[in-house]
Amino acid sequence: MEEINLRRLAQELNLSVSTVSKAFQEAYDINPQTRERVLDMAKKLNYQPNPYASSLRKQKSKTVAIVLPDIANNFFALAINGIESVAQEKGYHVLIYLTHEDQAREVAFAQQLVSGRVDGVLMSLTDGTKTHDHLHRLEKKGIPIVFFDRIYEDLPTAKITTNDFDSGYAATSHLIEQGCRRVAHLYLSKNLSISNRRREGYLQALKDHGLPVREEFLIACTGDHARNYKQIEKLLRAKGRPDGIFSSIEKGAMLSYQACAALQLAIPSDVKIISFSNLEIAALLNPSLSTITQPAFDIGRQAATLLFEALEKGLPALPAQHIMLDSVLVKRKSTEASPK
Amino acid sequence: MEEINLRRLAQELNLSVSTVSKAFQEAYDINPQTRERVLDMAKKLNYQPNPYASSLRKQKSKTVAIVLPDIANNFFALAINGIESVAQEKGYHVLIYLTHEDQAREVAFAQQLVSGRVDGVLMSLTDGTKTHDHLHRLEKKGIPIVFFDRIYEDLPTAKITTNDFDSGYAATSHLIEQGCRRVAHLYLSKNLSISNRRREGYLQALKDHGLPVREEFLIACTGDHARNYKQIEKLLRAKGRPDGIFSSIEKGAMLSYQACAALQLAIPSDVKIISFSNLEIAALLNPSLSTITQPAFDIGRQAATLLFEALEKGLPALPAQHIMLDSVLVKRKSTEASPK
Repeated sequence: MEEINLRRLAQELNLSVSTVSKAFQEAYDINPQTRERVLDMAKKLNYQPNPYASSLRKQKSKTVAIVLPDIANNFFALAINGIESVAQEKGYHVLIYLTHEDQAREVAFAQQLVSGRVDGVLMSLTDGTKTHDHLHRLEKKGIPIVFFDRIYEDLPTAKITTNDFDSGYAATSHLIEQGCRRVAHLYLSKNLSISNRRREGYLQALKDHGLPVREEFLIACTGDHARNYKQIEKLLRAKGRPDGIFSSIEKGAMLSYQACAALQLAIPSDVKIISFSNLEIAALLNPSLSTITQPAFDIGRQAATLLFEALEKGLPALPAQHIMLDSVLVKRKSTEASPK
Repeated sequence: MEEINLRRLAQELNLSVSTVSKAFQEAYDINPQTRERVLDMAKKLNYQPNPYASSLRKQKSKTVAIVLPDIANNFFALAINGIESVAQEKGYHVLIYLTHEDQAREVAFAQQLVSGRVDGVLMSLTDGTKTHDHLHRLEKKGIPIVFFDRIYEDLPTAKITTNDFDSGYAATSHLIEQGCRRVAHLYLSKNLSISNRRREGYLQALKDHGLPVREEFLIACTGDHARNYKQIEKLLRAKGRPDGIFSSIEKGAMLSYQACAALQLAIPSDVKIISFSNLEIAALLNPSLSTITQPAFDIGRQAATLLFEALEKGLPALPAQHIMLDSVLVKRKSTEASPK
């Protein structure tokens, strides 16, 4: 197949190459009819301008990056769907970078992105992100960042989360109202503000219901699920074990189900369980799982909408704002009250 | 922050801009010590070459596209993880395009990709892809394509799937061996070769066990899950309903569970169910789900490995080959034989 380039188009139309080139530029001093002729012929010959030449000229790549821990996770998959739905509408291309909870990868990706490959970045941090120079460097380069879910609070930009404190409070209160007196909490990482907000909600609910805080009931989960499982099993095996578990992460609920099965503890009569989760089939589990369900798609959509608005206005950074979209508490069998 | 560009680097080093530029090119006629000086200074000043200028010069973008139906699907999420693991090793960037089972989007994406934005494409078709001009156009442009899972058989390139016929045969035979005599099959689309292979395996197993084919037991699922649910419910409500269901898609199993619950049919005693599925928590369902589990991560990894090998060799297309990675049949409670 013959290569269709500007020169070939110009020949076909009997125009100069520079005239044809102008027809593809946003600001053009070209007769509108001529422009239309060029675009019609380009369509007919199936000519596509080289995107890299075009982005060099415009200093825009029409590309954004999503940097996030994991894709095989219902929350993030739905959030990506939300982001991508806006990107398609707006004609943006989406690069995806998975950190797998490894800060070194997050830093390496950020380093690659300062070079102009993307116009903006949508980011959800790893559970181990402790230093933030790589984020400040992106900001200083004038590359707008929007954080979603696992946000970095100290960078003044747009951040989208759910109402983490209230959700943690509601989940814990629900367990207590269903009869639990010894509620354990599985959380993700003290490095993550959303995890801290959920834990604060848990602690406040214990306090408001006059229940003591037991340090051994607070379990930090990591990417090492075998280790997490052992900790949960040990907790459930101990004397004075919890009668309720509020998990900040979906995986924690699944490990708790497995540990209960292994120890022959019945859910909900021995242990009640509620978890942050976007698992579509929570209702089909044995027993069906009570969840705090985040508006994951909308969180992604909102993050992308703010970013594209900023890019269209040519802003190098977004105004500092924190948008919280409410989660929903869905009560199912895993937290049903035992008959008296 | 001051912009670090080639000119600034050259000033700093007291070298010409063209000498500094050469240090960043792969084939360079430059004194190695000078090159090292330039690279050290670039590192010190945190200079990143503009990737678009660099790709124009090299005619390579170091970027590939993944075009696939859906990300909120365990199989595809794991396959993307596999692809991405190789991309990180090889230093490639990954663009992601979701078709949501809409052929028009697939065509539009392919159209965008012929323009040189990417060096190669990894693709899994929509369930409605009937015409293939857009795929042939990519091929003619010399952009290598590797298909995974939902492949297009008529393009001579690399294709990675599981052993779909054998898996369909094994799943159906398992149901029959557990006592089923009326096995229904939920399949995805007659446009998809993998779906056809799985159905052929189902039909062959019926034949080999001397069981009749009932046309009304073959149900085509679409992206419209409400419609799929109605069809499954109607089938299970009918006189002479199936006593076994083999689903080609995970979602079909979930809808079957819901329909059985609504109709108060017990799994496995009234209806046994087995499904293609990469659901990590299949064992936690009520009852635990027997699955045909595809090596999704490895399918993605293998597809990406072949593509990057071709790109590194500068091949415009891949040799025609079809690699099949075996799935595993995992027997759980949903197909347990009823006591006699």
